[in-house]
Amino acid sequence: MRFSHFFAHTKRSAAAQDSVNAYLLDKAGYVSQVAAGVYAMLPLGLRSIQKIEQIVREEMNAIGASELSLSALQLKSTWEKAGRWADPNFREILYYDQDADMALAPTHEEPMTGLVKEAVQSYRDLPVLTYQFQTKFRKELRAKSGLLRGREFRMKDLYSFHPDEASHNDFYEVCAAAYLKIFERMGLDAYRTKASGGIFTDKFSDEFQVICPTGEDEILVDHKTKTGFNQEVEDQVPAAKKGKLERVKAIEVGNIFPLETKYSKAFDLQFLDEKGERHYPIMGAYGIGISRLLGTLAEIYNDDSGLKLPRAVAPFDIYLIDLTEGKMGVELHDKLEKAGYEVLLDDRAKGAGEKMIDADLIGCPIRLVYSPKTAENGEIELKVRATGEVKRIKLDDLLPVLGKSLL
Amino acid sequence: MRFSHFFAHTKRSAAAQDSVNAYLLDKAGYVSQVAAGVYAMLPLGLRSIQKIEQIVREEMNAIGASELSLSALQLKSTWEKAGRWADPNFREILYYDQDADMALAPTHEEPMTGLVKEAVQSYRDLPVLTYQFQTKFRKELRAKSGLLRGREFRMKDLYSFHPDEASHNDFYEVCAAAYLKIFERMGLDAYRTKASGGIFTDKFSDEFQVICPTGEDEILVDHKTKTGFNQEVEDQVPAAKKGKLERVKAIEVGNIFPLETKYSKAFDLQFLDEKGERHYPIMGAYGIGISRLLGTLAEIYNDDSGLKLPRAVAPFDIYLIDLTEGKMGVELHDKLEKAGYEVLLDDRAKGAGEKMIDADLIGCPIRLVYSPKTAENGEIELKVRATGEVKRIKLDDLLPVLGKSLL
Repeated sequence: MRFSHFFAHTKRSAAAQDSVNAYLLDKAGYVSQVAAGVYAMLPLGLRSIQKIEQIVREEMNAIGASELSLSALQLKSTWEKAGRWADPNFREILYYDQDADMALAPTHEEPMTGLVKEAVQSYRDLPVLTYQFQTKFRKELRAKSGLLRGREFRMKDLYSFHPDEASHNDFYEVCAAAYLKIFERMGLDAYRTKASGGIFTDKFSDEFQVICPTGEDEILVDHKTKTGFNQEVEDQVPAAKKGKLERVKAIEVGNIFPLETKYSKAFDLQFLDEKGERHYPIMGAYGIGISRLLGTLAEIYNDDSGLKLPRAVAPFDIYLIDLTEGKMGVELHDKLEKAGYEVLLDDRAKGAGEKMIDADLIGCPIRLVYSPKTAENGEIELKVRATGEVKRIKLDDLLPVLGKSLL
Repeated sequence: MRFSHFFAHTKRSAAAQDSVNAYLLDKAGYVSQVAAGVYAMLPLGLRSIQKIEQIVREEMNAIGASELSLSALQLKSTWEKAGRWADPNFREILYYDQDADMALAPTHEEPMTGLVKEAVQSYRDLPVLTYQFQTKFRKELRAKSGLLRGREFRMKDLYSFHPDEASHNDFYEVCAAAYLKIFERMGLDAYRTKASGGIFTDKFSDEFQVICPTGEDEILVDHKTKTGFNQEVEDQVPAAKKGKLERVKAIEVGNIFPLETKYSKAFDLQFLDEKGERHYPIMGAYGIGISRLLGTLAEIYNDDSGLKLPRAVAPFDIYLIDLTEGKMGVELHDKLEKAGYEVLLDDRAKGAGEKMIDADLIGCPIRLVYSPKTAENGEIELKVRATGEVKRIKLDDLLPVLGKSLL
C-alpha cells in the first residue's frame, strides 16, 4: 500500500484522552473518538480489528461453531421473557426507542435462544454452537477507558446449547482451550481466572485476564499455572493456594458463563431425548471483546515513540521508507508484497525525520529505510520495532532476513 | 462443511412474509425475521453477505479507496451542522436516545466530513477516498419488502473529497464503472439511470437499477445502452430518446450523489491550493445496499423449488448427498474441499427425499448425489441448479466436469 493512497493521519500532539490506549491509538491514527466510549475505526485500526477477528473466527470454526449475525435492534418483549427487562440495572444500559418499542442489544442470550428454539426438536439437533461478531451497545456510565469500556463496541459472542451436563462441560473446556490459543496467537499472555457465575448458577464463571497496571480488575494469580481468582471470589481460594498468589491489576479480554437452563426454560426451548422425554438444553455463553483487545494490545505494546503491535495484529508487516530520488521504493514495495508481506510505503511529500517518527508511532514490526548512504553499498537499513535493533543488510539478503525476522 | 455441524434450518411451510425474498430466504434458512425490516443473518445468509461484501471490497480497493468503520452512535450536534437535524423528514427516521443526545446514523456524510477535516490541510492531502461496510438504522415507515427496505441493514458507503470539479468528475465515472463490474460479478444486470440530484445540486444523481417486477421504482430504460431515467426526471428525457424507452419496475441497488460543497462548507473543511489559496473540497457519496443485494438476488434467482443464486454469492458451491451406507460422502467432501470447492455435505439423519428438497431450496449451484445405483457403475449424479440439467458422470471425471460446470 502506498501511503499517498491510504487514508491515515498521525498527530504530533494528540489531545489528552481518558487512557493510554485511546491516546496512542488516536495519535497514531488508528481510531478517532466520537464521544466517550464511541470510536471510529480508521483504516489502520480497522486492519488490526480485522486481523483480530480473523484469528478468533479461525479458532471458533475449528471447534465446530457456526458464524451468524443477529440484529442489534431487538423487541422489548424479547427481554421480558427471562425477566431482564424488569431489572433496572439491565434496563439503564439500553439505548431504547419508545416509538418502536425496540432497544439496541447489549448482549444476545435471549434472541439467540429464541432463534435456536425454531430449529431444535430432537437430541439429534444438539449441540448447537453459534457465534457472531457484532457491534454491541451499552449506555455505560463509566465509559472512560478508551477502547477498554465502550458504549459502542465489537464483540464475539458464542452461545452453546447441549443435551446434557457432560456435553456442556466438554465444550466449555474445548472453548477455554481455544480462548488461550487465540490470545497467545495475538501475543497476549492470558490467565484463566475463576469469578462469580452470576445469579443463574452456583458454579464459577471463567474470566481470561491479561495482567496490566492500567486494568480495571484486581485478580489473584498463580504465575506457574497461569490461573487465578477474581478478588470477588477471594474467600473461595483453596487453602493450599493461599500465600502462593500475587495480587495484580488486569484487563478482562474474554469470559465464559455457564447459563444452566435459565434461558431455555424462559423460552420454553425443549428437545426430545432418545426415549421421547422432554428436556431443556443446558446453555453456555462465551464472549471475547474484539475492540477491547485492540485497546489491551495498545496498553501493553507501546513505548515512548508509539505503538509496537505484534505482527499477527499490526496493520502492516513492514513500513518502507525510500530516501533516494529513484524508483527503488516502489520496486521494493512490489517485490515484498509479491513475497506475501503487507507493506506500507511512505511515499508522502514529507521529510525523512517525519517519516521516521511516523514509522515508530504507527509501529509496524519492521521498518526498512533505503537511503543514498545504504544504496552506496547495495544495502538497506532494517529496524525491528519490538527490540529497537537496527542493522544494515545487503539488498540481496532482504527476503531471507525478513523471513527470519517476521516469523 | 458437514451439515450435522452447521446451524441451518429449512422450513417446509414458512409463514407468509411481506415479499418473495423474505419468504424464500426465511424458508431456506438464510435469514430470520426479528421485526418488520429487521433480520438476523443465519449462517447460510451470512456466507452470501460476506461474499457480496468481499466483491464490493475488492472493487473499492481497486479504485484506490481506504476502508474504515465509523460509529453508528453519533451526536445530535453533528447533524445540526449541515441543517439536517432541522429537517423533520430526516429526524423522523432516527432512532434517538434523548438521555445520551445521540442517534443511530442512517447515513454518514456529516461524521465523515468531520473526520476528514482533521486530516486535510493542503491540496497534497486530496483526493480522500474512504468507504465502509456498516449497519445503518432508519426508522422506516414502509419496512415491508423483506431485505429490500430495512430498518437495520448493511450498506457500503463511500465518500470522496476532491480539490476540483475535474478530479470529482473523473472519480465519479471510475466509481460508476466499478459499480457496473460489481453487479456483473454477482450476476445482476444493472442499468445506470439518471435521477434527481436532490436539493444540494442541479446535477443529476445516478442510480443503478436491476429490472424486477417486484421492484419499488419505476424507470424508463434503453435496453441497448443499459441506461435509463427514473420517472421522477421524466421531463428530462432527451427528445431523441423518447419513444425508444421502455417503462419497467426495478430495484435500486446502488447510487452516486454529487454533493458539491454542501458538507465541506457546513464543516468549514478547507484546503490550501498550490498558490496558498483556500478552497472547499468537492464531495461525492457512493452507496451500495449490501443486504438489499441479497434480497434482490433472491427476488431474481428463484423457482418453485427455492433459491438458485449464482456461484459468486451462493453460500456453498456444491450440495453433496451420499445415499450409500459407506464413507464415500466424507471422502468426496474432503477431496472437493481440497480442490478448492465449498461443499455442504448433507450428513443429517434424514431421508433421501428431504435432502433433495433441501438441496433445491438452499440452491447451491451444483447438487451431487452418490447412491447405490450410481455406485454400481462408479458414477455420481450431477445436477446444475440453474438449468435443472441432470447427468451421471464417472467419479474419475468429477473434478474436470466440475471445473467446466462451475466456471
